[in-house]
Amino acid sequence: MEPNRLTATEAARAIAAGRLSPADLMEACLARAASREPAVNAFVHLDPAQARRGAAKARPGPLHGIPFGVKDVLDTADMPTGYGSPIWAGWRPRGDSAAVAAARAAGAVIMGKTVTTEFATRHPGATANPHNLAHTPGGSSSGSAAAVADFMLPLAFGTQTAGSIVRPAAYCGVVGYKPTYGALHRAGMKVMSESLDTIGVMARSVADCALAMAAMTGRTLGDPEAKPGRAPRLGLTLGQEPGKAAPETVALLRRVADQARKAGAEVVDFTLPPELLKAAETHPALMNMETAQSLAWELNEARAQLSPVLLDRMDWARSQPMAAFREARLAQSAAKLCFARATEGLDALLTPSAPGEAPEGLGWTGDATFNLLWTTLWGPNVTVPAGTGPKGLPLGVQLVGRIGEDAAVLGWARWLQAAMG
Amino acid sequence: MEPNRLTATEAARAIAAGRLSPADLMEACLARAASREPAVNAFVHLDPAQARRGAAKARPGPLHGIPFGVKDVLDTADMPTGYGSPIWAGWRPRGDSAAVAAARAAGAVIMGKTVTTEFATRHPGATANPHNLAHTPGGSSSGSAAAVADFMLPLAFGTQTAGSIVRPAAYCGVVGYKPTYGALHRAGMKVMSESLDTIGVMARSVADCALAMAAMTGRTLGDPEAKPGRAPRLGLTLGQEPGKAAPETVALLRRVADQARKAGAEVVDFTLPPELLKAAETHPALMNMETAQSLAWELNEARAQLSPVLLDRMDWARSQPMAAFREARLAQSAAKLCFARATEGLDALLTPSAPGEAPEGLGWTGDATFNLLWTTLWGPNVTVPAGTGPKGLPLGVQLVGRIGEDAAVLGWARWLQAAMG
Repeated sequence: MEPNRLTATEAARAIAAGRLSPADLMEACLARAASREPAVNAFVHLDPAQARRGAAKARPGPLHGIPFGVKDVLDTADMPTGYGSPIWAGWRPRGDSAAVAAARAAGAVIMGKTVTTEFATRHPGATANPHNLAHTPGGSSSGSAAAVADFMLPLAFGTQTAGSIVRPAAYCGVVGYKPTYGALHRAGMKVMSESLDTIGVMARSVADCALAMAAMTGRTLGDPEAKPGRAPRLGLTLGQEPGKAAPETVALLRRVADQARKAGAEVVDFTLPPELLKAAETHPALMNMETAQSLAWELNEARAQLSPVLLDRMDWARSQPMAAFREARLAQSAAKLCFARATEGLDALLTPSAPGEAPEGLGWTGDATFNLLWTTLWGPNVTVPAGTGPKGLPLGVQLVGRIGEDAAVLGWARWLQAAMG
Repeated sequence: MEPNRLTATEAARAIAAGRLSPADLMEACLARAASREPAVNAFVHLDPAQARRGAAKARPGPLHGIPFGVKDVLDTADMPTGYGSPIWAGWRPRGDSAAVAAARAAGAVIMGKTVTTEFATRHPGATANPHNLAHTPGGSSSGSAAAVADFMLPLAFGTQTAGSIVRPAAYCGVVGYKPTYGALHRAGMKVMSESLDTIGVMARSVADCALAMAAMTGRTLGDPEAKPGRAPRLGLTLGQEPGKAAPETVALLRRVADQARKAGAEVVDFTLPPELLKAAETHPALMNMETAQSLAWELNEARAQLSPVLLDRMDWARSQPMAAFREARLAQSAAKLCFARATEGLDALLTPSAPGEAPEGLGWTGDATFNLLWTTLWGPNVTVPAGTGPKGLPLGVQLVGRIGEDAAVLGWARWLQAAMG
């Protein structure tokens, strides 16, 4: 197999065994990027000479020599960091963000910076969906999802405030893992929502997500490739706005639930308690009011360079009473407590990753309805590819777990993939 | 009165009434700094010409023309930002941190950057206590406390992870206000502990703290100068290590409790529940393990430029099992819930701000024992000056409240000051 098509787990094993060199792996990734980037536009910064130098001096470690993409909301000391905004074009931070430094310390090679929407919000970048260039890859982690899906690299950082890891991963047919809130330190990230923003990873296998997170955090996430020894008890839900699920998504969830049952799982309907409905309803106030605070300098000094869609949101946020902010925070706290109680006896929730296939056009990155509640709850969210829709584009299904139960949810994601066949 | 001796509230009123100009206020502050800085060393960056330009173009707003000091862990677009570390010496961020931008938007004039310990941890800067130059001003917000105390400016930012606002404010005889966690957005702050770091303010009156926070956040903190119409019910505690309180501190708390009772308050002994003792015990693991994550780039690339005391802490943190981190996070969550229940029926806790007077010497910024638990709980902490100790140095007493009850706790701080006479 071409080295760029290996998963990170496979490539790390080959490098450790001396069957593959970091240099050869990087060459394969660079060759793929050279042929595909003109169409896909996953990278906002990719300097092959720099990537080669990085591969040559990769540190030993669990990610030794693995090319890693960095969403351009994370600072890099040796690459420009633009946060998806013309205001920050060409900016050169002095230091790496903590997440990037952790990846390098574990042996990863930062291959380049991947396209983000404007400040990881809604205004899109140039990236296209590698499965169909006329469709969005989703966002805000657009470039990371597309680059991983298109075999330009095996691993990339995403960040999620509403649905910015899970949705693009599903649209591009890769695995997206939003860990428990706070698992990766946000120092050197352009944080918008302090209460929501979470750094995670995208890969072509669940094992790769577990490998990368364990390598960067020192957490034990179990054997990345082991399958649980029993079948799970899953709660099935279409979320707080089931009417937004496309017919193919409704059919997909039904089919996956049946496959899980055939493999021994118990799958029960999960009804959202009022506390969760309330948290979903107040998510926009929490997200946008915090984002408006975060962008205070940009609003003071460079308002004209913010996109109209972002300005509209900020103006809305600034018009909200502070009581709405307080209410949203309280709703988040209440929902977190409620979720732990309401899911007692369940191993995870099974729910859509997105409304359906990636929408046509590059002007809109899609709807985060099926993600924002789960982000608010702070627990792990994992999307795995689950076939294709009527247009032949990827679909995904999502597992949602309780705070701190990352290893278990990653394990159930592997179990579910096996059950889906 | 010389304009630099006015409180922010007085100065803002004089400016609004046309009795004082931002330029004249700044000149008075600059003159004071010129005479005192050679001895006090509160600023790490102070350019009089730049400060004058700032005063000339101050925006209208509730802080119109008020000189504001910025602890050098907060990014400023027009001033170097060094985070108290040689690794970042001379660094020029492109943008203002969100807190600085909020201050400017409210009309404040950033006068300069104030000295912080190394990354707001323990290795001290050059600042001396203005009340006795042979003594520490406390830390990590050393320069902000000293500059406010010494009438160089009326308002300054501090940040607190353990006791970095309350302790230096007490040592320097000023008011220190650590708001509810998250009140000021940390974008553009060099965050160490994601779970603890909180931005707040120092001033020479409680009213000034309320004025500044309300102006920057849009929150209503009530009439900054109004006194509550009733007397409070206060819980009295010497914290989790009462033996660390100096005799003058024990006597001070007894005296202040008596004064409060005479003014009508009910003061009852408050015994720390086990959940709070546990959170105090696990605070070092939480703080130092998060700090080690945050400083991953510095540890990768510039280890030799970290101080021995910080390296020791980081090495300790990195040797801890991840289970200790999880335990500390859980202890924090449990303690937050417990505190709300345990203080039902109380308006606030009354507790020491520091073990005693500021220690002699500039090599050690003092002990955060009387602060770290309250920081962990996320609620507002306010220290007010309360006389002097045996060496004639300032003492403070601290009020601690529940999450979100900032306006109330600031009100009780004003009430307590009146009760102390």
